[in-house]
Order: sequence, then structure tokens, then C-alpha cells
Amino acid sequence: MRRERIKPWKTLGSETGPGLKLFGSRFDHVENPRNGMRMEAVVIESEDWVNIVALTPAREIVLVEQYRFGTGKVSLEVPAGVVDPGESPLETARRELLEETGYSSDNWKPIGRVESNPAFMNNACHFWLATDAVQSSAQSLDEGEDIAIVELTREELAGAIERGEMRNSLSLLALARVFDMRDGDWG
Amino acid sequence: MRRERIKPWKTLGSETGPGLKLFGSRFDHVENPRNGMRMEAVVIESEDWVNIVALTPAREIVLVEQYRFGTGKVSLEVPAGVVDPGESPLETARRELLEETGYSSDNWKPIGRVESNPAFMNNACHFWLATDAVQSSAQSLDEGEDIAIVELTREELAGAIERGEMRNSLSLLALARVFDMRDGDWG
Repeated sequence: MRRERIKPWKTLGSETGPGLKLFGSRFDHVENPRNGMRMEAVVIESEDWVNIVALTPAREIVLVEQYRFGTGKVSLEVPAGVVDPGESPLETARRELLEETGYSSDNWKPIGRVESNPAFMNNACHFWLATDAVQSSAQSLDEGEDIAIVELTREELAGAIERGEMRNSLSLLALARVFDMRDGDWG
Repeated sequence: MRRERIKPWKTLGSETGPGLKLFGSRFDHVENPRNGMRMEAVVIESEDWVNIVALTPAREIVLVEQYRFGTGKVSLEVPAGVVDPGESPLETARRELLEETGYSSDNWKPIGRVESNPAFMNNACHFWLATDAVQSSAQSLDEGEDIAIVELTREELAGAIERGEMRNSLSLLALARVFDMRDGDWG
């Protein structure tokens, strides 16, 4: 083991940045403890997110496919969403799975909390595993959504990843909590 | 297998949004193919990123610790950086590993390309594995950086993750390409 340590930076001030639809922004005035240099850092402010790995009684994985505006491409992903005010991450996970796919489960297990991108985002992403998930209702989509329901076996999932259909980093990380993701070609 | 399909959305127009230091932004006018609803979507524009899993001849993992402005916390991560204009992702990986840690390697292997967040970011993140990495020079830090070098065994890495020292989603996903990340408690 080799373990150097660094000091936190001082935040000298902060100002509100432009609004970005889903996000707020902020500029922090920070000071480098190594050399005293001052700079402005951008912070994109967001509520926490939830990503859900849902498995059916037959151990198929419940996924969603949607068009994503950032990349301008169709993307195969695990169900996911934003934590609403007053919601716990588990409540968000239950709600988003039900809204996006109509599936529900009585067996939920937290499988990790990560920082979505600590370099410039202030939020966390919570991973939940739902087992014995069954479709108990129809999808319930917002006007601004168009989501296809996909169910794949573990082998079919590996194929979808190899073909480049699943590229969302948070989806892949949630799945890496449940499946060994060392195999297969991610491109 | 169950496999519904969706259609891509139409982009009707696009306007430049505010600058955000490291990032540009854009508002796309998009149309939902399901119901014709039109909306504005924010896109944060960034160059591609690279994340590096570097292993020493003794199979220790070369990591970096730095203060991150998004979360305002110290974060243990794999070496990483932004692809400069004209650089290939491999060139970025070599440069960033050398600058942040002084380590270099003759053995590089691509271990995946993911979308950092297709919902609102337009860029990709490239994962590279460097084996037999040795420290060949001193760190070479920008004025705006303060980076500690950390070398951990696989077991020490698991401990650091369990203690919540490593929370960066892209770091964890890069490591999941090399190590089975199903074990351990991510909190």
C-alpha cells in the first residue's frame, strides 16, 4: 500500500449559475490548498437519482429502451429516475419501476450508493435490486416519455451489451452489482 | 425475451445555451414520436473522457485522491481526464496516467466505451487497462490540481470501497471491467 493524503479545498464564495431545465448550476470560488491558487468551479445541481435492477421470477432482467437527448440515440437501460421531494430512494425505485414498466416487487434490497460525477455534479445515485418482479399494471408514462419494455435473460443481456445497445454508465454499474461484468466486449 | 421497440425523436431545432466552464450547453427542440408533444431538452456538451485502471507488476492498483468540486468531498478514483483536441483516447490515457501519477506502461488494452450520461450529456467515456505500470517520473500537476497518489492491493481496494472512500461511478465501472464487483458493501 501507498497512501498519500490531500487536503480539502476552501470554498471562498459561491454564486448561482444559469438554470438548465432539469438542473440548477452554481459557480464556487475555491482555493487550492497546495499552492493557494484560486479558481471558479462549476457545479451542476440535481436531485438524487435511482437505478433499478429488477429480476422476474424466471430471473429475466426488466429493462427499458428510450431515446436519449444527450446522445441523440436510442438507449437500452435499467429503469431509473429522479428522487422527488419528500421521497426516499426506495419509494422512488418502486414508483419508477411501476411507472416505466408496470412491474412491482415485494423484495427490495439496496445494492449501493455512488456519486454520479463528483467532479461537477452534487448528487448521488442509489442502486436497488428488486427480485420476483411481476407486471402488475400497465405502464404509466408522462407526456414527455416514450419507453419500451424489454425483458432479457442474462445471456441476452450480454449480447445486447456486446452489440452496443446498452451504453449508459449508471445502468452498467447497477448491473455490475448483480452480475460479473468482466466478460463481454463493451466496444 | 420480450422486446418492444421505440422510435427516435425528431429534433426540430437547437439553440446554444450558457457556457459552463468545462462544458458547453445546448437546448434541443424535440418531438415525442408517441404523441407529437414538443419539448426542450438540455444537452451538456463535453469532450470525451478517459478512465484508467493501472496495475503494477505486483498487481497493485494505481489510484488518485483529489478534492472534487461537485460534491465538495475528497474522492478516491482511478486516474482520469479529458481527451484533448487531436488526441486519441489511448494518448489521453497515457498522458493522464503520467501527469497524475508519474506512472507509465507499455501494455495498454481497451476495456470498454460507455456513455457518461446519455440522458443529458453528449460524450463518451473510454476505459483503458494498463498492466505492468511503473513509476517512471514525478507527477506533473496543473496549477488547478492537487492529487495524491495511492496504490492498493485488491483487498485494500475492497476495504476502501466498503469504507465509502471510492464513490465515483465511472471509477467503479472501470474497475468492474477488471474485478468482480458483486461483493462488498457500497453503502
